[in-house]
Amino acid sequence: MNKSFCCIVDIIMQIYSHIEGGITVAAGFKACGVEAGIKYADRKDLALLVADEPCAVAALYTTNKVAAAPVHVSKERTASGIAQAIVVNSGNANACTGEEGLFNAYAMTRLMAAALDIEEQLTLVCSTGVIGVQLPMEKVAAGVEKAAGSLSSDGGHDAALAIMTTDTVEKEFAVELKIDGARIVIGGMTKGSGMIEPNMATMLAFITTDANVDAASLDAALRAAADVSFNRLVVDGDQSTNDTVIAMASAKAVNRILNPQHPEWSRFIEALKTVCIELGKKMVMDGEGATKFVTVKVTGAACDADAQKAARAIAKSPLVKTSWFGVDPNWGRIIAAVGYSGAMVEEQRVQIFIGGSVAYDRGRVADQSDLDAMTEVMKARAFDVDVNLNLGEGCDTVYTCDLTHDYISINAEYTT
Amino acid sequence: MNKSFCCIVDIIMQIYSHIEGGITVAAGFKACGVEAGIKYADRKDLALLVADEPCAVAALYTTNKVAAAPVHVSKERTASGIAQAIVVNSGNANACTGEEGLFNAYAMTRLMAAALDIEEQLTLVCSTGVIGVQLPMEKVAAGVEKAAGSLSSDGGHDAALAIMTTDTVEKEFAVELKIDGARIVIGGMTKGSGMIEPNMATMLAFITTDANVDAASLDAALRAAADVSFNRLVVDGDQSTNDTVIAMASAKAVNRILNPQHPEWSRFIEALKTVCIELGKKMVMDGEGATKFVTVKVTGAACDADAQKAARAIAKSPLVKTSWFGVDPNWGRIIAAVGYSGAMVEEQRVQIFIGGSVAYDRGRVADQSDLDAMTEVMKARAFDVDVNLNLGEGCDTVYTCDLTHDYISINAEYTT
Repeated sequence: MNKSFCCIVDIIMQIYSHIEGGITVAAGFKACGVEAGIKYADRKDLALLVADEPCAVAALYTTNKVAAAPVHVSKERTASGIAQAIVVNSGNANACTGEEGLFNAYAMTRLMAAALDIEEQLTLVCSTGVIGVQLPMEKVAAGVEKAAGSLSSDGGHDAALAIMTTDTVEKEFAVELKIDGARIVIGGMTKGSGMIEPNMATMLAFITTDANVDAASLDAALRAAADVSFNRLVVDGDQSTNDTVIAMASAKAVNRILNPQHPEWSRFIEALKTVCIELGKKMVMDGEGATKFVTVKVTGAACDADAQKAARAIAKSPLVKTSWFGVDPNWGRIIAAVGYSGAMVEEQRVQIFIGGSVAYDRGRVADQSDLDAMTEVMKARAFDVDVNLNLGEGCDTVYTCDLTHDYISINAEYTT
Repeated sequence: MNKSFCCIVDIIMQIYSHIEGGITVAAGFKACGVEAGIKYADRKDLALLVADEPCAVAALYTTNKVAAAPVHVSKERTASGIAQAIVVNSGNANACTGEEGLFNAYAMTRLMAAALDIEEQLTLVCSTGVIGVQLPMEKVAAGVEKAAGSLSSDGGHDAALAIMTTDTVEKEFAVELKIDGARIVIGGMTKGSGMIEPNMATMLAFITTDANVDAASLDAALRAAADVSFNRLVVDGDQSTNDTVIAMASAKAVNRILNPQHPEWSRFIEALKTVCIELGKKMVMDGEGATKFVTVKVTGAACDADAQKAARAIAKSPLVKTSWFGVDPNWGRIIAAVGYSGAMVEEQRVQIFIGGSVAYDRGRVADQSDLDAMTEVMKARAFDVDVNLNLGEGCDTVYTCDLTHDYISINAEYTT
């Protein structure tokens, strides 16, 4: 390890440290996950996340024009910048459920508000699961009642379990850092493994922090963090009706109020980005049927937008994704995807590297020893694909996975 | 069958009739397919298509910015509107092969021109197969020599066999019709089953006709036909470096020269569209690993472009495609795809039908008997998905297939 690398590590270490836990490690939050029997018996499917007091909130929602009922309700409420509690169910998306669905989404928040004795306007709702089926509201009501009695300051893990659908593992991540000398925690949980494409898609993510930050600044920070994390994930290119990312800040920490003028603002942003990137990576690693986690980095594009087009074309290409599954360094499919991506491309300038080995270098194609080296790297669970277009300064990174038999099985058999 | 339907059939029958054969049923063309050993032994992999005399030509090429060497060569030559012969090889795409590849593409046409004793400027070349590997030119040269001696006026079928890659069946279609009282034939062959997306993509198509039509009019007709056929296919959303559609017209028929002012011009267009649509459908039906052929028709969109966006989003969605494989009338995934397509959509106006049964009707969701009916229809090899957005007059149709375990197997195991 050379000296400059050590320095970088030191600097990063000073910014934040990874700690155990998820949404309840930041001070001021309680959570739980309970069995409500919404779709399946014997699994947690209803979670609550509750702040001790009304606090700053920021949120991002699906851009799908067919948005689920809970998206409409939460969007309306988070506009105020203040919230206190979120109810989340899995097993049913409450999407394409018309007026009855909208009524039920409001009812979920009303039930929670009553059970917790808080203002209904401060309550949010998220749902994930099957589209087009009405929620079993009696079960939901009983579940909310049960959950309200189960809240705990170490309930984050149960909540992470309750929001899973086809996920195979719960997903949590947290960091701590110091701002103004005060300890600040940022933690989160997420769910999502199919229907994932840039701009979120069947993913729910919840971030809590005890930082003292105003709602507008929290919103700016969340957007910046989502842009390099949740909006940079590609599993299958589908985008859901229910995507939601909500961040809440309890202000229990004693830092001076954070906003873009605060001298340590960028450290807060970096820490939040890390939480979002790590949660995002966990989703891709748990991508339906995925056996490979691939970081696709495009540099040298004419502009950032071109880099993004190229990276996403690679990450979305079924032919490229199946070649990864087949441990086949088929760079021809990668350059073909770059070629149709819409980005400016000159074949004679392109460089493609798989796991650091050269696949295609400005006209020179990989020889057998290159191919052997790439094949070896591709046997690992994770590897990088780097493409340099050598045209300008544009760059982008997306996180993606392979396309496998298990993806087909999971999605051909997961019925309405 | 009601009366009006009979009338429509009568009218269609008058326009053209389906006949056996492919590229050599039109007068004035010879073809052949031979074994050149380019990638595999014991399979035809080199085809020639030769007109008796120089004739009108029109062509369409991939829009991929990484275009293969033969695309550059043929594009340069078809600009003149006159051509006489095409050499096609499978097993090697001659793409990303740099200057040597370009030299080899020209050499292929030179070898053919010499063997046939025709002008090199009148010769075209197409390649399909693996990217990034140089052609074995000694084998190609021997193959061209052999093919030049094997040309026959019933060699179209052998040619259709020789251009196959992962295709499982050869693809030919032809029609006859009368224009100015003269019999005219339009026939074609195509290859392609993976990397297929709107705008052609690893497909090669060759159309011949004995109609008397000028090059500019043939070009207009081919564009109109491709727009409702080759540009409306979705297998996997990938687009290749080698796509080429070439039409040649020998003018052996005695019709008055065809152009948009000719009173029977629209009949010629309709017949050409039919040939292209049928060839296109054959490609989708032979889509890699496909078990279902699905016609996705979107009507009632705010404009045609919106209809196309919605239809393509459905056809490209891995989640929708796997649900078809699973014989699962999962209309929720269809409406989600429509929602993120970019088309204007109002959830409360959308209607979705699978095999004619209602899946979602302006807020009302399918009941169990609807679901049972759809499941029954989906067991067939082919079915329709119809979506009415009920917003305007825009419509579009795309032809697509399901996403299956065999697609994964074929593409994970087809190595560079």
